[in-house]
Amino acid sequence: MIMFNCDYLEGAHEKILERLCETNMDQTPGYGVDEYCDRARALIREQVKDPDAYVQFLVGGTQTNMTVLAALMRHHEGVIAADTGHIAVHETGSIEATGHKVLTLPNKEGKISAKQVDDYVKAHNADEMKQHMVKPKVVFISYATEEGTLYSKAELKDLYKTCKKHNLYLYLDGARLGYGLMSEKSDLTMADIYKYTDVFYIGGTKVGALFGEAIVFHNHDLHDDFRYLMKQKGGLLAKGRLLGVQFEVLFEGKGKKCLYYQISEHADRLAIKLKEGIKALGYEMYQDSYTNQQFPILPDAVLGKLSKKYTYGYWCRVDEKHSAVRFCTSWATKEENVDQLLSDLKRWTK
Amino acid sequence: MIMFNCDYLEGAHEKILERLCETNMDQTPGYGVDEYCDRARALIREQVKDPDAYVQFLVGGTQTNMTVLAALMRHHEGVIAADTGHIAVHETGSIEATGHKVLTLPNKEGKISAKQVDDYVKAHNADEMKQHMVKPKVVFISYATEEGTLYSKAELKDLYKTCKKHNLYLYLDGARLGYGLMSEKSDLTMADIYKYTDVFYIGGTKVGALFGEAIVFHNHDLHDDFRYLMKQKGGLLAKGRLLGVQFEVLFEGKGKKCLYYQISEHADRLAIKLKEGIKALGYEMYQDSYTNQQFPILPDAVLGKLSKKYTYGYWCRVDEKHSAVRFCTSWATKEENVDQLLSDLKRWTK
Amino acid sequence: MIMFNCDYLEGAHEKILERLCETNMDQTPGYGVDEYCDRARALIREQVKDPDAYVQFLVGGTQTNMTVLAALMRHHEGVIAADTGHIAVHETGSIEATGHKVLTLPNKEGKISAKQVDDYVKAHNADEMKQHMVKPKVVFISYATEEGTLYSKAELKDLYKTCKKHNLYLYLDGARLGYGLMSEKSDLTMADIYKYTDVFYIGGTKVGALFGEAIVFHNHDLHDDFRYLMKQKGGLLAKGRLLGVQFEVLFEGKGKKCLYYQISEHADRLAIKLKEGIKALGYEMYQDSYTNQQFPILPDAVLGKLSKKYTYGYWCRVDEKHSAVRFCTSWATKEENVDQLLSDLKRWTK
Amino acid sequence: MIMFNCDYLEGAHEKILERLCETNMDQTPGYGVDEYCDRARALIREQVKDPDAYVQFLVGGTQTNMTVLAALMRHHEGVIAADTGHIAVHETGSIEATGHKVLTLPNKEGKISAKQVDDYVKAHNADEMKQHMVKPKVVFISYATEEGTLYSKAELKDLYKTCKKHNLYLYLDGARLGYGLMSEKSDLTMADIYKYTDVFYIGGTKVGALFGEAIVFHNHDLHDDFRYLMKQKGGLLAKGRLLGVQFEVLFEGKGKKCLYYQISEHADRLAIKLKEGIKALGYEMYQDSYTNQQFPILPDAVLGKLSKKYTYGYWCRVDEKHSAVRFCTSWATKEENVDQLLSDLKRWTK
Repeated sequence: MIMFNCDYLEGAHEKILERLCETNMDQTPGYGVDEYCDRARALIREQVKDPDAYVQFLVGGTQTNMTVLAALMRHHEGVIAADTGHIAVHETGSIEATGHKVLTLPNKEGKISAKQVDDYVKAHNADEMKQHMVKPKVVFISYATEEGTLYSKAELKDLYKTCKKHNLYLYLDGARLGYGLMSEKSDLTMADIYKYTDVFYIGGTKVGALFGEAIVFHNHDLHDDFRYLMKQKGGLLAKGRLLGVQFEVLFEGKGKKCLYYQISEHADRLAIKLKEGIKALGYEMYQDSYTNQQFPILPDAVLGKLSKKYTYGYWCRVDEKHSAVRFCTSWATKEENVDQLLSDLKRWTK
Repeated sequence: MIMFNCDYLEGAHEKILERLCETNMDQTPGYGVDEYCDRARALIREQVKDPDAYVQFLVGGTQTNMTVLAALMRHHEGVIAADTGHIAVHETGSIEATGHKVLTLPNKEGKISAKQVDDYVKAHNADEMKQHMVKPKVVFISYATEEGTLYSKAELKDLYKTCKKHNLYLYLDGARLGYGLMSEKSDLTMADIYKYTDVFYIGGTKVGALFGEAIVFHNHDLHDDFRYLMKQKGGLLAKGRLLGVQFEVLFEGKGKKCLYYQISEHADRLAIKLKEGIKALGYEMYQDSYTNQQFPILPDAVLGKLSKKYTYGYWCRVDEKHSAVRFCTSWATKEENVDQLLSDLKRWTK
Repeated sequence: MIMFNCDYLEGAHEKILERLCETNMDQTPGYGVDEYCDRARALIREQVKDPDAYVQFLVGGTQTNMTVLAALMRHHEGVIAADTGHIAVHETGSIEATGHKVLTLPNKEGKISAKQVDDYVKAHNADEMKQHMVKPKVVFISYATEEGTLYSKAELKDLYKTCKKHNLYLYLDGARLGYGLMSEKSDLTMADIYKYTDVFYIGGTKVGALFGEAIVFHNHDLHDDFRYLMKQKGGLLAKGRLLGVQFEVLFEGKGKKCLYYQISEHADRLAIKLKEGIKALGYEMYQDSYTNQQFPILPDAVLGKLSKKYTYGYWCRVDEKHSAVRFCTSWATKEENVDQLLSDLKRWTK
Repeated sequence: MIMFNCDYLEGAHEKILERLCETNMDQTPGYGVDEYCDRARALIREQVKDPDAYVQFLVGGTQTNMTVLAALMRHHEGVIAADTGHIAVHETGSIEATGHKVLTLPNKEGKISAKQVDDYVKAHNADEMKQHMVKPKVVFISYATEEGTLYSKAELKDLYKTCKKHNLYLYLDGARLGYGLMSEKSDLTMADIYKYTDVFYIGGTKVGALFGEAIVFHNHDLHDDFRYLMKQKGGLLAKGRLLGVQFEVLFEGKGKKCLYYQISEHADRLAIKLKEGIKALGYEMYQDSYTNQQFPILPDAVLGKLSKKYTYGYWCRVDEKHSAVRFCTSWATKEENVDQLLSDLKRWTK
């Protein structure tokens, strides 16, 4: 079976494993106050071009979202997200389990706009019954989005300005940040992301690490006591240095020379190759993605053959005979597997 | 600096790292439904001598405690624990953050007794104001305890019987299960632990793994939908196979021949060596521990010297000039370091 | 100012006040275990035609919804509601604050259908990622709905059957139950409501009482320990007899001869008079309601005049020059005020 | 049966009922923004001698405690209380149900001291594992305490100063505030309470009202959005004016001429009469209370007779043949009943 159903099918990039082996018997303090973590923090601060950026590490994305959002909200406050947002759909109500409502806005290509947020908050504030409704306090976006799409720099700036205007926080889920930033359609750098959000995270789990997400706070009012919350939400890893070691390997080197970007570029390139190949066969895409997730609309008959040899994510039914599916590439995807998939599709398409 | 302050100072046992390297580029489904996890489950079922034992894996202890306990209680129910219990003291209110009160009983050597539980529940049930108090539903114990002590088989059976009598669940935190079971004072096997609890976990983080805890349900009424809770609490590891691989390595082999037990025995042996050595110097122990944590009472003057060369855990002040401290050994402790520590102590004691 | 903006503008029906005065200096036990509460329970059991119905009293609707729903769900479960449902919109995230997600379905005239629920649950169960989503466990409906509409007996039975088929609970919010049941379009009795739900509540606050809601459990698996939850959620009224006294007055008498129904009929009759009068002036209704809330679409110019003399609820903008508004009648509405409103509207309409 | 078991046995003071009847058919806006509430707020502001005091009303004590404390704490913060504190014992874990741990300190006569708080917070801050423990943020005290005792002005000032020193909030539960303030041993006024706390509440339920507590914020950083929390926690009473009307009646008049103080004085006088009478019979008191709760130690044989004619609260066993019990007086207690009780006790004591 050749697997394309997600971007966490393999372990870690070999350089990460090597470093974990090399450092294995070093003795370090627990909970992320070791020197590996400190070096990784320094490297990330270089990436975001702010020596004061506050950086912590957690194990996974859902854990990160629920911990960061719990740190940002009082009991009566909620978080605005696209109705396709990961926290709204695929985290088993983890945000609600911390007591907060996810306030959904209809997505457009997986995104929400500054205008939508502005309208929502204005309507809330103008409503004489507003105290009977959850108060919006945070805006959650993803980059790349769950649909593989990207916010432009202008869109992100607009969202950030709107948040500041209404005293809201902007939080960006970067589970696929590398794949977003290295897309040919991206006009953002990590420093831009930092500048135009209050807090965001750099996804490691889907981008070369065994596991791990690096949370970066730009807004210094928000991270007081954050480590208490990390512990309370079950995320303060005993052997915290495992996270430091991994992020150190990912971000060693200058600017976009780092492993993190190189492996992201690889995944994006193969994703675009796949997309172009599928389009060349006459198929349409459900969503026009420029990142590592691709969503072709395929005949169910073709999918029947496909599923004997490949795994993919089922996205949704499009019509009686067609479905949208998801293929993911990643840092670990082999080009020969993409070629094989395209050649099989070509054969089955005739 | 030679570190003795906790039992998670190094990475993982080399055999675990080797296996992670060997399996690194295998493609597997995410979230712990892969074949590594399945094999690890089978090995654990052998250990507990029940082919129907329900096994899941999480990353760390606090996460495990809060997820299991959330699965066992309705909103108005609480969990009984010793006042020294980890959930009562050192998990930043993670249980309360899921809405449940920890109901503490005074510990005796880190333990609570069946009689204490029986009295507590009877008093609750007899109280005409009982609906104004949290209803006890689960009993939480640790093995080895936070104080390094052990429940005897008779004590555990009594607790379990008392729980069943009152329709309570018994949950055992096995963060240091290996160090408990391999103690010369232990009269329990893992199969006993399984038999006399409703659910327990096998600690990996402190016993040879990079991270990871294996949760084992004996009571089949309790694990329905447990994976929903794992996801909601942020614990469903994307690359779940990392947990399966590690526990597979730890439990390959028959009975107590497994790596898990061998490395635990190593830690216990060095701990006892340390204890005997310290006692031979004329010092008393704060708690008579037979597992990998040792709690000598030392003069502050000696500690002043000690802390320049060794790390240890500060436990509590005993009198004006003496403190109790904690030394931990682990699977990774080098005998030469124990010898060095004893020889330095001897020197500083004169 | 003549007020029509809601149905809780005045105190209580005079017969209730009289009884509160008569019984004022009686000494009774606290927390709703007094004889007034017991008599009220007996009267309600007659209404639902089941001597085993389990009845408790709380103070208000939001409190009731959050307490009942907390009793019905485990941590990973959620409640399905119409997107117009009170718990989804106007309770400041009280359900989420107890840890549970409200899963919204698009309403049709304020209602959701058995088919919608069936489709939703089937899709959930079929989804291979279902454990990443909140598990649906309860269906919440209102009678009358927040839009003034009514479920037919057939619709309610269908919903109940669908819930039972999928092992879900059906909960009915009866904040305006009297106004629903006494509508000329209702084909339900309170006994029907009881029969085709797992639990529902009889609203007192909006129907003649100073405050108070009577919760009626049909499903006997669900009310164990309910009084613990009442206390925990802040709802166990110290002078519980105040609730008993009020519901006793409301339900004394046989069948629909009770005060509860008589005063509900009064409100419905005036609401229909208002609706017919407004329609006769050529205006359309935003929602075709047969209960005590009426939603005419009026020109903003007319509303400008109206708001100087009357209060009403602003519902939503319909077009550039028209808005939908809400007028409520209640047990306390004076017919002369309805006549006055109609006559003013007629004058302003010319 | 003559009842002394609590201080909420009857309805409301007749003047309150009269006013509720007089105002019953007035139309007012809901949710406590009516003119009755505004007038009551103004009267309370006079009592605390600050025209800027922020005042809101809720229905009961548990609801008030959980709502205020939820407003004061972030997710990882906890509230310090005496181990006899109402929130620690008799609110069914309502604080934990909002996610916060109650951190208990051993009480002395129902009280905690500034020194205890200071020591606790210092120890927390000095602990290298502090992020593994709940962060103390609020101190909860009661006046009068659950044991009938009183903080002196010096003790209260000390607590407040200690809280300010450590950036903690001081919250005072005034369920029995009137009975506390009117005690012959009290050296505090309501203005003092206001001055030396961040927020407190004036209990109505136990002091003459049908129900109701008035929350008074001195610290203006804390009440932002408080009404959102009132709604979320189920406490925003639809007919909010019922609370306003009652507190208006209680606090009309100047200084201690108000009904609130007069009826409190009555209860305290009868409690002291009861205490002195019981002591004159040779019995000891379990707690030396100067407020409306009295805790004599009586022989079980006497209690056997007593319980056929009187209700009382069972407090605790003192020795094999004696128990401590609680008698409460209130605004509604008849002097003849106290006399009767004393005369019966005298008879049974011989």
